[in-house]
Parts: sequence; C-alpha cells; structure tokens
Amino acid sequence: MPASNQKFTDPVIVKSVIPKHRQDLLKWNGWGYKDSQFVIRDGVAYFTGQRYSIGNLTLPHLAPWVISVLNIDLNKYNVFNDLPKESDYPPPKLTKEIYEKLEKLNIPHSIKVIDRVVRAHGHTLKDIFILKYGRFDRIPDLVLWPKGHDDVVKIVKLADENDMVIIPFGGGTAVSGAVECPTGEDRPIISLDTTQMNRILWLDEKNLVACCESGIIGQDLERELNKLGFTCGHEPDSYEFSSLGGWVATRASGMKKNTYGNIEDLLVHVKMVTPKGLLQKNCQVPRLSCGPDFNHVIMGSEGSLGVITEVVLKIRPVPKIRRYGSIIFYDFEDGVNCMREVARQRCQPASIRLMDNDQFKFGLIVKPQSTFMESIVDGLKKVYVTKIKKFDPDRMCVMTLLFEGDENEVKVSEKRIYDIAATFRGV
Amino acid sequence: MPASNQKFTDPVIVKSVIPKHRQDLLKWNGWGYKDSQFVIRDGVAYFTGQRYSIGNLTLPHLAPWVISVLNIDLNKYNVFNDLPKESDYPPPKLTKEIYEKLEKLNIPHSIKVIDRVVRAHGHTLKDIFILKYGRFDRIPDLVLWPKGHDDVVKIVKLADENDMVIIPFGGGTAVSGAVECPTGEDRPIISLDTTQMNRILWLDEKNLVACCESGIIGQDLERELNKLGFTCGHEPDSYEFSSLGGWVATRASGMKKNTYGNIEDLLVHVKMVTPKGLLQKNCQVPRLSCGPDFNHVIMGSEGSLGVITEVVLKIRPVPKIRRYGSIIFYDFEDGVNCMREVARQRCQPASIRLMDNDQFKFGLIVKPQSTFMESIVDGLKKVYVTKIKKFDPDRMCVMTLLFEGDENEVKVSEKRIYDIAATFRGV
Repeated sequence: MPASNQKFTDPVIVKSVIPKHRQDLLKWNGWGYKDSQFVIRDGVAYFTGQRYSIGNLTLPHLAPWVISVLNIDLNKYNVFNDLPKESDYPPPKLTKEIYEKLEKLNIPHSIKVIDRVVRAHGHTLKDIFILKYGRFDRIPDLVLWPKGHDDVVKIVKLADENDMVIIPFGGGTAVSGAVECPTGEDRPIISLDTTQMNRILWLDEKNLVACCESGIIGQDLERELNKLGFTCGHEPDSYEFSSLGGWVATRASGMKKNTYGNIEDLLVHVKMVTPKGLLQKNCQVPRLSCGPDFNHVIMGSEGSLGVITEVVLKIRPVPKIRRYGSIIFYDFEDGVNCMREVARQRCQPASIRLMDNDQFKFGLIVKPQSTFMESIVDGLKKVYVTKIKKFDPDRMCVMTLLFEGDENEVKVSEKRIYDIAATFRGV
Repeated sequence: MPASNQKFTDPVIVKSVIPKHRQDLLKWNGWGYKDSQFVIRDGVAYFTGQRYSIGNLTLPHLAPWVISVLNIDLNKYNVFNDLPKESDYPPPKLTKEIYEKLEKLNIPHSIKVIDRVVRAHGHTLKDIFILKYGRFDRIPDLVLWPKGHDDVVKIVKLADENDMVIIPFGGGTAVSGAVECPTGEDRPIISLDTTQMNRILWLDEKNLVACCESGIIGQDLERELNKLGFTCGHEPDSYEFSSLGGWVATRASGMKKNTYGNIEDLLVHVKMVTPKGLLQKNCQVPRLSCGPDFNHVIMGSEGSLGVITEVVLKIRPVPKIRRYGSIIFYDFEDGVNCMREVARQRCQPASIRLMDNDQFKFGLIVKPQSTFMESIVDGLKKVYVTKIKKFDPDRMCVMTLLFEGDENEVKVSEKRIYDIAATFRGV
C-alpha cells in the first residue's frame, strides 16, 4: 500500500466489548450476554437488560403463546448444571515436559476447567443441551491467547514438533461442530483463542481495504471502522460475538450480502499459519486470473488446515441513509413470487427477507406493550389489512427490508421494490 | 431443477459460427477471421470484410501514423510461413496399438498436420511470431472431437490407462501458455477439442441458470441465450472466439463484470472429468457455507487437473436498454481520480474503462473517413474541447462507458456518473 493512502500510522488497538475471560460477561451455558434473557415475573414475560430495544419492557403476548403453543409449564423450573468446578473434568493431558515448553513460549495461557469448558463447544442446540444438562467427553487441555501472528507461528511450530492438536477459537458461535474436541483424541489439545489479536493493522482509504487481525469481534470491527468513516457491511446473525477469522474459516454469509457480498466477496487476502509454513499471497491486487484461488480453500476450512492470523477486507464509506421497511403479503406464495421478480430484476436492497406466517406471528408475539397512541395506529393498520384488504391473519406473511445508500439511491430502490410488491398484492 | 422451470425440453443444438476445421474460417497464423484484416491500397489503409463497423471504409489517418510512429516501411512486404505441409512436422508419436485403441473409441479425430498445428498454440505475441516466422518444437499427435461428456470420460480413461497426455482445447485464444505442448514431452499428446460439445442442455428460467456444454463459443452462447430472452453478460475481449470451458479453466474476466461479475461470479456448477473420476457437486444451490469451494480450484486450473465438460451459469433477462457513453478528461490523473470516486460510491455501470492519451489518439486514428456533416459536428466538438475548454490534445484521455438496464436505471446511472465526472473536469 502506498504510504499516502494510509489512514493512520500505528495499528488501531481495539478495546473489545468481550473480555478475555468471556464467562465474565457472557453466559457460560447459553447464547449471548448474562444480563440479557427472557424471564417471567408475576406470569408476565420480560426481556432483561438494556442492551436491546425490547429490554425491560412488558411482553404481554409471549407467556400465553409459550404456554399454549410450546406447551410449557411455567411453574416447573428447569434445573441446570452449575458452573463447572475443577473436579468436574480430568486434569489436562499435558506432560510436565510439554507444559514447560508451552510456558517458555511466554504466551498467556490457562488450564482452568471453566476456561477450557467455554472453549469446548460452539452454539448448536446440542452444545447448549450438553452445557445445561450434560458433560463434554473431551475438553481442550490448555487455552493459549497469542498476541499476534508471530505468537501463532511459535505455537504451531511447537504443536507440530510435539504432536499436539490445535483448535482455533474465535467468537465461539460456530454451528458446524468444528470447535468440538474429538472424543477419542489422546494427543494434547490446545484451544488457540484468537481474541487477543484484534488490532486493525492498516487501512487504505483510497483502495478501500483494511487489514485486521483475525480475532477482532464483529461488533468491535464495525464500531472502529465506523469511527474512521467506513463500514465492512458483513452482518451474520452472530456478528455481536463472532470473529473475523471465524467468518473466514466458516465461509460466513451476512444479512446485507446483496450490497456487500458474503465473506468470499469481501476477502482480499488472508494469512494462514500451517505446520508446513505460511500461506499468503503477496500481491495487493484484489483478483488474479492466474491459477486456482486458494483463498477459497481456506474459506470453509474450519481451522482444519491452519490458523488464520490476518485478513485484508474490502471496506466502504458508511452509507448516508439506512432505512428499514416491511411489506405484508396475502400469503407466502405471493411473497416468494415477489422475491423471484426482485431477483430477476436484480434490484435487491441491502437486506430482503421473507418471513412465513409462523415467523410473522412470532414477531407480533415478542412485541412490547405499546403506548395508547401506538395501539390506535396499530389497530387502524390491522383493520386496514384484515378488514379492507381482507388478509387472513393465519396466512399473511411479511417481507423485511433494509435500504442503504444516499437519499436518492434509497428512494429509487424503495420505489422499485414497493412497485414490484404491489403487483403481488403486497401492502 | 423442477420441470416447470424448464424453458425447453430437448437440449438446444447450437450451430456454431466457428467450423470444426477452424482454419476454414479463421486465420491459421493470426487473430480472428481470414476476411478481416488491415490492408493498404494505393497508400491508404482499409479494414477488409463486413463483419465490423470499420469494414471496407477508408481509414485515412492510419497509414501516416503507422509510418511515423511505428516507423514501418509500407513498401517492404513481410514474408510469412506458408500454410504448414504434412512434411513440415514429424508423424504423430502414436504406436499402431494406441492408434487402434483411439480409433475404437469411435470419436472423430484427425492426425493432419494443419489440424494439429492450429491447436498447438494460444494467441500470445510469441505464438503468432512462431506461426509467421518459425516452427513449433512439439505439436499434438492427434486431435479428438468428443460429442459430449461421455466421450470425454472414455478419452480420459484411455489416456490414463495408456500414459497419454491430454491438452483440452476450446477457442484457442489462451494467453497463458497452457495449450502449448511441452517441448520434451515423449508421451503421445491428444488435443481434446471441445467445440463439438456445445449444446445448451437446459435452462431454468425461474432460478435464472443455464447448463451448457463447455465447448460453446462466446458469441454462439450469447446469440442463443438472446433468442430465449436471456443474456450471460460475460464479455472478455476474446468472446467472439473463446469458449465457455476456456473461460472457466482460465478464470476469465469480462468487460461488463461490474454488472454481471467475472466468471467466478457467474459459475454455479461445473463438471470436470479427471483421471481419478468425476468432480462435481450435486446440489443445485448457488452457494454453500460448508467447507472449501473447489470450483475455485477448477477455475484457473488451465486444463491441468481435468477436462471441463459442462457448466451451469447464472443468466439474466436481456436488458431493455444498452447505451454507450464517453467522457473526455483534461489528463489521465483526472480520469483516475474520477474512477476512484466512482469506485468509492460503488456506482460503476456495466463497463467503465479509462484510456490514456496514446489509446485515445489511436482511437481517433482508426476512425473511418466521415461524411461532410459528421466532419462539421466533429470539428465543432473539437473546437469546444480544445479551444473553449482548453484541453491539450497531447494530454487528454477518454473514459468509455456502457450502461445496461431499464430506461430509468440507465438514466439514474448516467446522471450519477456524469455528475461525478464533472467534478473532475470531465466533459
């Protein structure tokens, strides 16, 4: 990169929302923040905490729905596993000799059971069930927190020379099973936690690319880029907690992929440390016609080929306008046909999603209690849709939209989508 | 694909513009059609034939430019190699036994020198120089024209069992050297010509994908898709002559990639026959988050891993409007800065190219003699640009544009580009 394109001289040190000991802020046995969960008080549902828009508001429709549809007895409390104790799992499979070698690396580490357990799983239903009611057959023997690429090179070399297993760990939101420890694995297993390597190393504002360390968490990356006037635009549902390296290793898709692309469209370069050496391309061009593109073998490799340490990503200026929209359809088929026409005309906005009737209803069920005026407006809308347009509440579905760009672009895009939707009875 | 999405029942048999014996229509020792070349008559340059817009028109500026800039003596004629004779090259390195096995495949073949020579090279300057003034050290021993995937399977099996080399050959426009025969190759070399497998096997008009055999030539593919109301949109400069399989094998880029993407964006599926078996994905979804994407190893493999036989490509409805435009800049730097701003705002039209001053001048030099009225309009434009705007003819450069879409889209896009250009002194 020419020096004149550089937005800043020293790497940006990023203070992550997620602490090094993740269990201090996040649930050790469930999704997300400890302070954010559904609770019942006096038979009425709430969502705790102030992090989300439904925080601490009454959700009057939720409890009745949970009781009638999911057939749950709210008086019967679940008894979950306690926080794991040191005695719950066998000591790490590490000889004294190996442990000394690992200590000599001078890289922060832990052999505490809780640190090992929270890195023994992703976030599948099975994982959460085991955390709440069961026990993992195998957990990592040691957690290492490298501070950057060079630390990773040292770890991979040591592991290779001493027949140890490395499982890279970023945000821990995987649903592919790739962070699970194989049950019968007798070799020592290192959980290589990337989250302490999370700097933005450089940003080229002319070529609109940024180089980041792989452990940066989605929300941290987006916040820091926003401060500099840019956005990455990659928003998988996990993006509050998942890491850049994880996006690459799992070939992630984001909800704004129509505008920004999936991770394979955003990725320009990637550095991966393997036991056979470093895999990287040295040119800075975004595309080569010569030969296979091995970035596409790294993407989706799920940590099986090496440890991703640095990623060069495309970035864009923050869009001036970000506007949400929604369209109600008579039934799912109308919605699908509208989606097809939008695809045919290739005019998808940043995000466009079609919810079926169940999802539509659930959206209404988790709506907070509204103010008096809101109720009146909602009531009028409901009358319009169900009485005048004669939509059937048990068939209706909704399309949610997100438009991004400058005012004119967004207007043109909105008009186009709403015009298409109208031809499919969309309201 | 659901049967209801199928645009036609039987595969579309495509009559290619390019004949099986390519030298009947194409230059055996140069680019393109035999009837299309620059000639000098009475000291004035013409371009022969009616295929292109400059066909058979006087090009009054060309000869003086060639003489003064390229320092060429038009009275001195080049003496080129004659069409190669049978005696010019050694007989094919094929034992009687192998030849009999090949004949038993019952696939059309040739061992004629001319058929082998025209498939011994791509279209680099070096290739053309050898054709005109030299001789190839090694040419294929036999040309085979399989009629479809099953024929290719048979050929690859036979070659694998008998230690023969296969070099796949499509349009012959390669500039990577991959169709060259290695000089010291002692094993028999088969040139596998894909051009006789060029059907459109199916077209799914709802999901907007089409499956084609790999030998279909760009102009044939586009013409046939257009007849059905669709376009592929991939237009590498070679697209009159290059093949779909070649685009995939060489990871081609097209001039309308801003709208349609490069070949890696258009490709959904690909079938490749390798000595170890068939490489293909069986699902019809365009994208998978699971695992590496081996399509990206096939793309750019240049025939080294196997023979591409079928390709599923994204297609689109033919755009309603296709409009060209151009903008003149004071100098190249202004042009580059304008390009950067267009990239920053991500509003590239289908094609946007910046020509430097040399290219700009050359564009004027190959302009045909114009009519009286055209001369007056051109003269006025020239006065406006050089006298009123005070642009220097030795610094000016030009941006060429192609807009595609519906009338409104094109208008919005044009306005946006011309507005940006105006801020960089673009006219």
